[in-house]
Amino acid sequence: MSEPRHFLSTESWSHAEVLGLLDRAAELKRVRVDDQLRGQRLGLVFFNPSLRTRTSFELAVQMHGGMSVTLEPGNGVWGFETEVGTPMLGEAAEHVTEAAGVLGRYVDAIGIRAFPQATSWAEARRDTLLHAFAELAGVPIINMEGARRHPCQELADALTLRERFGGDAASTGGTGRRRVVVQWCWHPKALPTAVPASAVLAGLRVGCDVTLCAPEGFELDGEDVAAAQALATTTGAALDFAHSRHDAADGADVIYAKAWGGLDRFEDPSGEEQRRGLHRDWCVDADLMRRTRDGAFMHCLPVRRNVVVRDEVLDGSGSIVLDQAENRLHVQRALLTTLLGGHSNGTSDHA
Amino acid sequence: MSEPRHFLSTESWSHAEVLGLLDRAAELKRVRVDDQLRGQRLGLVFFNPSLRTRTSFELAVQMHGGMSVTLEPGNGVWGFETEVGTPMLGEAAEHVTEAAGVLGRYVDAIGIRAFPQATSWAEARRDTLLHAFAELAGVPIINMEGARRHPCQELADALTLRERFGGDAASTGGTGRRRVVVQWCWHPKALPTAVPASAVLAGLRVGCDVTLCAPEGFELDGEDVAAAQALATTTGAALDFAHSRHDAADGADVIYAKAWGGLDRFEDPSGEEQRRGLHRDWCVDADLMRRTRDGAFMHCLPVRRNVVVRDEVLDGSGSIVLDQAENRLHVQRALLTTLLGGHSNGTSDHA
Amino acid sequence: MSEPRHFLSTESWSHAEVLGLLDRAAELKRVRVDDQLRGQRLGLVFFNPSLRTRTSFELAVQMHGGMSVTLEPGNGVWGFETEVGTPMLGEAAEHVTEAAGVLGRYVDAIGIRAFPQATSWAEARRDTLLHAFAELAGVPIINMEGARRHPCQELADALTLRERFGGDAASTGGTGRRRVVVQWCWHPKALPTAVPASAVLAGLRVGCDVTLCAPEGFELDGEDVAAAQALATTTGAALDFAHSRHDAADGADVIYAKAWGGLDRFEDPSGEEQRRGLHRDWCVDADLMRRTRDGAFMHCLPVRRNVVVRDEVLDGSGSIVLDQAENRLHVQRALLTTLLGGHSNGTSDHA
Repeated sequence: MSEPRHFLSTESWSHAEVLGLLDRAAELKRVRVDDQLRGQRLGLVFFNPSLRTRTSFELAVQMHGGMSVTLEPGNGVWGFETEVGTPMLGEAAEHVTEAAGVLGRYVDAIGIRAFPQATSWAEARRDTLLHAFAELAGVPIINMEGARRHPCQELADALTLRERFGGDAASTGGTGRRRVVVQWCWHPKALPTAVPASAVLAGLRVGCDVTLCAPEGFELDGEDVAAAQALATTTGAALDFAHSRHDAADGADVIYAKAWGGLDRFEDPSGEEQRRGLHRDWCVDADLMRRTRDGAFMHCLPVRRNVVVRDEVLDGSGSIVLDQAENRLHVQRALLTTLLGGHSNGTSDHA
Repeated sequence: MSEPRHFLSTESWSHAEVLGLLDRAAELKRVRVDDQLRGQRLGLVFFNPSLRTRTSFELAVQMHGGMSVTLEPGNGVWGFETEVGTPMLGEAAEHVTEAAGVLGRYVDAIGIRAFPQATSWAEARRDTLLHAFAELAGVPIINMEGARRHPCQELADALTLRERFGGDAASTGGTGRRRVVVQWCWHPKALPTAVPASAVLAGLRVGCDVTLCAPEGFELDGEDVAAAQALATTTGAALDFAHSRHDAADGADVIYAKAWGGLDRFEDPSGEEQRRGLHRDWCVDADLMRRTRDGAFMHCLPVRRNVVVRDEVLDGSGSIVLDQAENRLHVQRALLTTLLGGHSNGTSDHA
Repeated sequence: MSEPRHFLSTESWSHAEVLGLLDRAAELKRVRVDDQLRGQRLGLVFFNPSLRTRTSFELAVQMHGGMSVTLEPGNGVWGFETEVGTPMLGEAAEHVTEAAGVLGRYVDAIGIRAFPQATSWAEARRDTLLHAFAELAGVPIINMEGARRHPCQELADALTLRERFGGDAASTGGTGRRRVVVQWCWHPKALPTAVPASAVLAGLRVGCDVTLCAPEGFELDGEDVAAAQALATTTGAALDFAHSRHDAADGADVIYAKAWGGLDRFEDPSGEEQRRGLHRDWCVDADLMRRTRDGAFMHCLPVRRNVVVRDEVLDGSGSIVLDQAENRLHVQRALLTTLLGGHSNGTSDHA
């Protein structure tokens, strides 16, 4: 059996392939139901809560005649051990090696949601669970949000931007000289950086210039920035960095708000919280939006109202957060039909 | 898009429409599977536990070729905030506005189960969650039991009564001069009043006289009583109230048992419990049933055996509680095929 | 309605019928999807965690066009009372009588997972929940692991042995003079004996000699041993017992590892733990495997690595644990299509 095709991040797919997923998503958006995935089986493993991801993946496979199973390790399903080589004398009754191996026998692709769970960023950023499944399951693994990326959100955001700005989308994904600000916001918790890293890529993907705007100390992981710079080179868009949210918003076309914690104090939660607390006023309000060029407001959801963004913005006409969420469904339909259309996993269709 | 048709209570449907649902349910009871709901998607959101409702809704949509997603906020899904306008600094990571908006993009109808959760009846009776979804989701909302009503149980009970008593059901729903006693019982907890309010309506709906029998202090909400009186006028049945369970049972055709808490002491739980405790002997036993006219025993389930009803009654030949439960499935099939048959939600069938 | 056919253990099925299930499973393994179970509904009730069982049952029914509902009593579903005749004043809101009766109205078969939960083995071994469902639901009940047996694992293990050793499988199930050691191992918890009892039967079923090897004090339930002896007589295989794991492994073809607690100290957990602790060295390692005749390693999973079995064995070429797990899916497909193919449960197919 050949190596399965994973979707852990967009880097392992060519730019043309990613644009092809967006095209397919746009087409499928007009199709309610068909049988492209008849007999195909999707496993969904959630180590963390989910509303959009769970709902949209369960429906995506069913809308094409396939089936899914949703598992929540530790909630009705045995918890998994990830350590290698040590005696399993703790709470976990099952090792990820067997969990991945077994699921790979049952299903044709597996989605994994696993937020950072280590105490150091050096460890958390390795996305151990995701990569263990990718190595051991023998079927395509889909990243439903790990420590580093949320590539399904990235596709949905890219599609939403294309819908917003048009452009010669099918061939170049271009939206002209538009500018997206990925805007740090304050939040009571040190949230993961997967979404901002992916949001930057989403903007660049469709040819928008992107400004990553955050206070000092809230830089993204260096490899994620490098990936963004490489994509900017590919699509001819510009990536820059700002510390002033007011300057960044001036003339922008999109404010993409997101809260996250400081990676360099990942191991010092109280120090991180203290520094984060210096910026409690970083909340997107109507004043900030007025600096934009009739800008759209984006957020991956869930969002804390009047903490990350004021009601006046989220409920305003420029808010396209529901379009983003809806597009999750359609990009995942595109992804699944691409990965699994005609796939057979050792058993043959009953003809 | 036109305003979606909700099923929050039976009042917003005409008497003829409700009888039509019963007719359709009776027909579907003879059909195991078809494709009426192919491509239709149902979201089920449970804020409280469920066995019958969850099982019967999940199957109802699948028996007609549709699909469902079940979510339990707070259990693998983000909890929802319902307060408007305040900063979300508590536990809830998502506001109901976004939850409803997003689900409305993913599915064609949403069922909501949300028991009373406020500390005052004045607040609880507003059924904030249900109405928030109805206002914000843009798709039909189905009440799977709120503070005030349990309309799917109501349909199931009405169908069960029609099956029991016959009558010119299809045209008038009439069961002649039968009498149903909705009988308060003691229970260790102050349970909600949605079921007794709906049981009264179920009896009146099919032309039975109804006696609501409870100790003083356990009256139903005034608006629910008014709705019952209006329905009695429509169907020509009589509604009366009793405080003596023995007198009420004399000559009755049905004892519909249900425990509930006193609404006027909703804000004083220990006072409510004390008053409720005065009536621990209110349990349906064989003696009470002997006063009836070979009466049937009904209950919505789950029921605490030998607290609300003695084994001798629940296991006796007059018990039709399983028929009620089974009919949940069929009335919900009728409801879903009525609400969603041919519906398209912005995407078109792949023809 | 005739008495439903249950699958609580393999004893109530003839040897020929059980071999027939294995044959059907082998055939279905080559079929990805068909419509044999269109319109058929499976209920799955888990009182304990599961990964393999849940995933494989949910998929098994869907792979043949049927549908399933998964319930976890106490987790989003009311907990069940099993005591008979007493007032339900505790936590449980629903009696198993109604739960079984209602589910029996909704679905065409019910799978139940219920580990031993009593404080005495005399009580636990009665498998009260399983038998209550079998008596009350009116539809076939499938044992998804109770106190005494795990018959779906047993079928999967039998199929795996047949695949490994060939033989005139279709007609006799024979694997010649092969020998399977069901090997006790140490574990920090006193696990149930259902799997070792079923593993012994699986080996004997396909004509293997079986050695049950455990320290003194870890004998299986007498009735389970008697069932194994009866099956050995039927298939002409030999069953013997050993206390030395090294001697038992000499020349064996399979080491089937499994940890379990001592039944005769079931009511004395600390005494049981102490006696179990005398055998912490009972872990399957490469040394033990070298005594075998190029033996296979089997385990039902989940397994604690480097406690029950060393990585070197579990990751070695002789390990067939994933085959066992995969076969769970196929034997359950065989079981469900046998039990439900053409079944109608009171409603007729829409022709």
